[in-house]
Amino acid sequence: MVIGIMGSEFDEATSVRRGTGGRYDARITPGWDIAGNANGGYLIALAARAMVAEVERPPLTLTAHYLAPGQPGPCTIDVDAIRVGRRMATASAKLEAQGRQVMALLGTFGDQPPAEAVAPPVVNAEPVDLPPIEECLPGGPPVVEPDTSGFGDRIRSVYHPDDVGFQMGSPTGKALVRGYFEFADHHRIDELGLLVAVDAFAPVSFNRPEFPISWAPTVELTVHIRGVPVPGPLRCSFSSRFLQHGMFEEDGEVWDADGNLVALSRQLALIPR
Amino acid sequence: MVIGIMGSEFDEATSVRRGTGGRYDARITPGWDIAGNANGGYLIALAARAMVAEVERPPLTLTAHYLAPGQPGPCTIDVDAIRVGRRMATASAKLEAQGRQVMALLGTFGDQPPAEAVAPPVVNAEPVDLPPIEECLPGGPPVVEPDTSGFGDRIRSVYHPDDVGFQMGSPTGKALVRGYFEFADHHRIDELGLLVAVDAFAPVSFNRPEFPISWAPTVELTVHIRGVPVPGPLRCSFSSRFLQHGMFEEDGEVWDADGNLVALSRQLALIPR
Repeated sequence: MVIGIMGSEFDEATSVRRGTGGRYDARITPGWDIAGNANGGYLIALAARAMVAEVERPPLTLTAHYLAPGQPGPCTIDVDAIRVGRRMATASAKLEAQGRQVMALLGTFGDQPPAEAVAPPVVNAEPVDLPPIEECLPGGPPVVEPDTSGFGDRIRSVYHPDDVGFQMGSPTGKALVRGYFEFADHHRIDELGLLVAVDAFAPVSFNRPEFPISWAPTVELTVHIRGVPVPGPLRCSFSSRFLQHGMFEEDGEVWDADGNLVALSRQLALIPR
Repeated sequence: MVIGIMGSEFDEATSVRRGTGGRYDARITPGWDIAGNANGGYLIALAARAMVAEVERPPLTLTAHYLAPGQPGPCTIDVDAIRVGRRMATASAKLEAQGRQVMALLGTFGDQPPAEAVAPPVVNAEPVDLPPIEECLPGGPPVVEPDTSGFGDRIRSVYHPDDVGFQMGSPTGKALVRGYFEFADHHRIDELGLLVAVDAFAPVSFNRPEFPISWAPTVELTVHIRGVPVPGPLRCSFSSRFLQHGMFEEDGEVWDADGNLVALSRQLALIPR
């Protein structure tokens, strides 16, 4: 049985085939790479597809540790359903490809309770402040030759004009990157799509002049899914306050087109050297 | 072999005995509980002690999913060293007691690189603003009878006078709690001690009048260890911006007595009902 609704590039590229004992066969699909290595958020979504199939609930909080780059080709995802409760389920997974483990994951899964079932929301923040999408700018990292990377053809990430200084050799001085995210085929973004959005922009270290514009390897990324997005581009913000001891945190906020907070993310990454 | 330096209550209460195949025997020590259930940060530290022993490095980023309460008594920690590299190691663990799994963990471990080995730090934040420690107030949750809980005798958490409204039946209206943390025996706080600090204060939901002052069960907690604290009480801040769909995130910052950021934490918890 193949799991994953056909009809969008993303659903097809994250489809998995259920085996036995929690094993899923899948494929790191060509075209989701940056310079040959699959985008990290895409790999999380691929593994999460198998975890969701195993516990039959969408993610609430998911942590991934990045162990090795993932190149296109067959892969396996082994899911261990640690505890399946009435409301929530917790599972771990490992994603292996080319004979090595690419990623280790641990998450808790469950449906978002309907709004009327709980107390009124308390939100002490505003949606990410962005100009209209047509005034935003493409902002792929200049180190990557566009014709060697497929990821930029699968997703559309456009940047706040104030945050693209790094592209012109003039880092803004603020470890901040904001922009819109959508799939290139405009397919609706579900909970698994949010996992791609949170790792789809240039590292915020690019906008600090102290650090080279070079790959900032993710050690670990945790996403809290806080809502199901309505259709339309997502408003995203990524920032860091502490770039020290060779590492930095990158805090992400993702809001949907109706102004609802739908995901919070934080990753720990290595400062480029 | 017993691992854990004797001489402090915390080290003793988190000591583990190495078995074979990654198994460690330990004990959920009486006296680290709140109303009979061991404090969550203490349980993380106990499991982390075994993970650190297995990979021989302190934590850099550690995620714990809370599955069941842990009561005092014997427990086992099974550690899987997923990848041990030159600089970093990634491991998962499960903590079991009374025949059930209490906690699932996944972390990456490694030493903090010495400051001189990397670029100068970029810090865009100030240490938590607190009055002198003698002007801060004890702030245990009023729902808990002190004489049924040992945790408050093991650690000392004192609160910013502006943040204790919830204790007097006057929530401040801000989902914010700040204070100092130290061990009751004044023992030096190491990386494992930081794991206790980030889950040792009252839930920030207590200061929002919409929600009852009642247990806010943690689903998942992730800590980034960003430095090794110098001796002295820690300055801690916890806050939340999004209390919605029955859940809230609690963001923690921990600074040492010299004004260095030493830990960032975020947990996803259930809003009390």
